Amino acid sequence: MRKFQVITLFPDMFTGVFGSSMMWKAQNGEHVELSTINLRDFGLGPRRQVDDTPYGGGDGMLLKPEPLFAAVEHAKSLDPSAKVLLMTPRGERWKQETAQAYADTDNGYIFICGRYEGYDERIVSLVDTQLSVGDYVLTGGELPAMTIIDSIVRLIPGVLGGESSAEIESFSDGETLEYPQYTRPEEFRGMKVPDVLLSGHHGEIAKWRQQNSLKSKEDS
Amino acid sequence: MRKFQVITLFPDMFTGVFGSSMMWKAQNGEHVELSTINLRDFGLGPRRQVDDTPYGGGDGMLLKPEPLFAAVEHAKSLDPSAKVLLMTPRGERWKQETAQAYADTDNGYIFICGRYEGYDERIVSLVDTQLSVGDYVLTGGELPAMTIIDSIVRLIPGVLGGESSAEIESFSDGETLEYPQYTRPEEFRGMKVPDVLLSGHHGEIAKWRQQNSLKSKEDS
Repeated sequence: MRKFQVITLFPDMFTGVFGSSMMWKAQNGEHVELSTINLRDFGLGPRRQVDDTPYGGGDGMLLKPEPLFAAVEHAKSLDPSAKVLLMTPRGERWKQETAQAYADTDNGYIFICGRYEGYDERIVSLVDTQLSVGDYVLTGGELPAMTIIDSIVRLIPGVLGGESSAEIESFSDGETLEYPQYTRPEEFRGMKVPDVLLSGHHGEIAKWRQQNSLKSKEDS
Repeated sequence: MRKFQVITLFPDMFTGVFGSSMMWKAQNGEHVELSTINLRDFGLGPRRQVDDTPYGGGDGMLLKPEPLFAAVEHAKSLDPSAKVLLMTPRGERWKQETAQAYADTDNGYIFICGRYEGYDERIVSLVDTQLSVGDYVLTGGELPAMTIIDSIVRLIPGVLGGESSAEIESFSDGETLEYPQYTRPEEFRGMKVPDVLLSGHHGEIAKWRQQNSLKSKEDS
């Protein structure tokens, strides 16, 4: 079974997300095994030190190399061919097509969640790919790791049911789901469902959806 | 105190993240109040229905308008001036400068986490701003809401300590933190800290950092 291992100082942050509906199904259906590794367990000395001040001066604390190397080596001992991913704002931008490519392989992945920007540069020698989820600063790599895991796991064949698989396919062409959708009631607080959608004329419905498709900001 | 209220079918997903170090400090220091509202509590009938099939055909289930309107009205009754934000891949792309602008106001925010792309379009009439965190599909709006909350809360004055505030300032000019950083030990597995960083010559260190600054992929 594919393993996704997350190295973090805050494993408790993952409990709710790894237990959420889709991820629970993925694990229960044995499509993927999600686990956390507490970086603190690899800290140095009686205080389990994991960080220290920067050489050359500067604010903040940096993650030290020794605990991170030890944690990655532990994860690799459980999954020798796993790829190592570092969450960092200077990484390659995560995109839907990358999520699809990651879902299509059989690789396991080891996610390193550091304080954003606060790590010893030598850590990079361990890393296969540096990844960023967007142009914004977060407290740490935990939310980016959860985001990337969610976007991959839902694409692994068998994780979502039949209906939803179709939904994914229609999404991946970048268009089909971009039209406005409506469900019951027909009228709510004076706002009505467009007549054409109630007409049962499939050709007219398809035409209306085409004409009313909403491009995302990035495309327009 | 500023309120950030999250409307979701999966409030348990937020427990670990809202309890994490930075967010705990922000709440404990009374800078912000973070809470979830369970959309299911506003569902219809004995089964607390929140979704239904799309008019005009199509896969998947859509969030119905009535429970979402009721949940937003409940949230507004607790914070009448709050802005309503809808997490959706077709929204405006979240950026660091938007996070800063949101942190600089005194507004409360109400986050609507839907199934991604699966909601009745009339919900949009409730919404002040539609937001997207990136070009990838997720199971729902929960991780985007957490991401946006993290990026705002850490910028609220007083949430992070003195050192880290400086760190934020240096990050916001887009350059200062983009150089490689090192901490002890001086040598690790044959990899040495650059001599100049050990020299104590501040001018040389500044020059080295400038010369070795790492632009993000987006800038290059």
